[in-house]
Amino acid sequence: MYVFKALVSTAICMVTEFQFIDNIKSKYALNKLGDDCAVLPKDDDTDLLVTSDMLVEDIDFQLDWTTPEFLGHKALAVSLSDIAAMGGDPKWSMLSIGVPENVWDTEFLDRFYAGWFGLANEYGVELVGGDVSRSPDKVVIDSIAGGEVAKGKAIMRSGAESGDAIYVTGKLGGATGGLKLLERSFTIIDDLPDLTSNLLLKQLKPIPQIQIGNSLQQLGIVTSMIDVSDGISSDLAHICAASRTGAQIYADRLPIDGDLSNYFHSNDYFDMALNGGEDFELVFTVSKKNIPLLESLPATCIGEITAKPGLIELIRDGKAEILKSEGYRHF
Amino acid sequence: MYVFKALVSTAICMVTEFQFIDNIKSKYALNKLGDDCAVLPKDDDTDLLVTSDMLVEDIDFQLDWTTPEFLGHKALAVSLSDIAAMGGDPKWSMLSIGVPENVWDTEFLDRFYAGWFGLANEYGVELVGGDVSRSPDKVVIDSIAGGEVAKGKAIMRSGAESGDAIYVTGKLGGATGGLKLLERSFTIIDDLPDLTSNLLLKQLKPIPQIQIGNSLQQLGIVTSMIDVSDGISSDLAHICAASRTGAQIYADRLPIDGDLSNYFHSNDYFDMALNGGEDFELVFTVSKKNIPLLESLPATCIGEITAKPGLIELIRDGKAEILKSEGYRHF
Repeated sequence: MYVFKALVSTAICMVTEFQFIDNIKSKYALNKLGDDCAVLPKDDDTDLLVTSDMLVEDIDFQLDWTTPEFLGHKALAVSLSDIAAMGGDPKWSMLSIGVPENVWDTEFLDRFYAGWFGLANEYGVELVGGDVSRSPDKVVIDSIAGGEVAKGKAIMRSGAESGDAIYVTGKLGGATGGLKLLERSFTIIDDLPDLTSNLLLKQLKPIPQIQIGNSLQQLGIVTSMIDVSDGISSDLAHICAASRTGAQIYADRLPIDGDLSNYFHSNDYFDMALNGGEDFELVFTVSKKNIPLLESLPATCIGEITAKPGLIELIRDGKAEILKSEGYRHF
Repeated sequence: MYVFKALVSTAICMVTEFQFIDNIKSKYALNKLGDDCAVLPKDDDTDLLVTSDMLVEDIDFQLDWTTPEFLGHKALAVSLSDIAAMGGDPKWSMLSIGVPENVWDTEFLDRFYAGWFGLANEYGVELVGGDVSRSPDKVVIDSIAGGEVAKGKAIMRSGAESGDAIYVTGKLGGATGGLKLLERSFTIIDDLPDLTSNLLLKQLKPIPQIQIGNSLQQLGIVTSMIDVSDGISSDLAHICAASRTGAQIYADRLPIDGDLSNYFHSNDYFDMALNGGEDFELVFTVSKKNIPLLESLPATCIGEITAKPGLIELIRDGKAEILKSEGYRHF
């Protein structure tokens, strides 16, 4: 599907950000670009993982829909999720933030850092640097995280092989459901101090899957992994592109967030689970012979890797349909 | 002066970004924050240096006043300068960039990366990651760099001692002079392809002092160092604050950029050299007994460290005046 999209996009003379990165990678012969983290040599036993994620007001978040604490938490969570997706342990972080003057004059940053440290302390992540800057009118955040993984053992996107089973941790679609609820009702922010909706929390305060990423790395059987940041249809396409494979997934196996059925029609929430981003669960592949080793982990088998590069098929009601990557894109 | 400013600022209930960082540092007991780079253990022989700098359109740069190539160069240069200020060797970089849709649809990013790689290749810096994102209306850049330095040998801001001589590399004020020229004439951009003005180049395409930073680190005699990013009156104040010292500098020893006299009055260009930012030269201190070892280096002695914490004095016409930190601040 990645290939299909590339053709369509070229036809209208535009590139997606993924194509742009591919172009840069090829033009300047870069080989550390394009996974969830860069893997850099640290010492004899350890590799360093580094990642950077930019969050821009009115594109990636709305100040009216969240609290500064949730935003601080989420800024770090997205980067820790990248470390988790390589099977690593997060160690340190840098935070660059640009805020307009009217925000600087409030308690926004104090509350933002309180949320940030709430999550950082859970994982022993140390703030080691960053930048505080003025911006003309929007809040801009760049979250950088560093982690460690045993030498040569980082789990890349590129190791999936035809026949591997595809797994996903947790449930899907919740973060998008939360976003839809926020879009429908601006006033829900008033209830945030007593927030009970799981869907809203999944959107506003996502949990990076550090422990399960670690467990999977230690099992030593995972052939490829990525986190669900853009939507599983897109994120699985990244695995297939990097591994030069295809994939088949089964509609009836998708672990759809149970809370979605309280608010949405079944067609809509199936789409949220398939194409909705920001669940920050982990998608990974293992050889079928290793499936028994996954028994104790909260992960669901949703399909298998195929030998058809770039082709992702959705099996629904016994029929195969070509699955487009409908996940989130900036461009 | 740092202390004076803090008092003034508190009186009007506002904090500078430097005070904000100090507050965060103290509240969350952070000890790696507040130097040009964070210093992290790498292996038995080496420390890792990491730094992050955010550049926001209309605050840190104007698209009308530069070219995408210069901007790409400068985005990396500011981070390499932080590595230089610790005496390190730059090794890798990550680049997060947010651009509005109308910029995405142009050749801006291709040209930006061309400028970025022009500088990166000079120093063997590898692009290992980053993020490409959409922004609502302004270009936002976060430049992250990683470097290395011999274990325990990074040059911090905090080691200056009373009696040390204060040195600065190169000439000062040129970058601010260039900025003033750009502010006066929007059309100067038309001449950029044949740009001959050193002042404009100093503003738009600054050179990080990697080699001299390295040489100083290898000499092993430098007690503190910082780069001139906000202006020497402010940057020297950072050294004094971190080292709990004061400083005396001599007006007639300031190495003022010779090109400034072609465009500006002497009072103005003295102020540019004292308070103007972005020259990306290095300010450092050495014990006086080691001065002879600096003979072959392009650096000027401008004064000495004193035992009066926070007090920076400017000696002009034989009289001492208290020097305020008038360098660039975002807040």
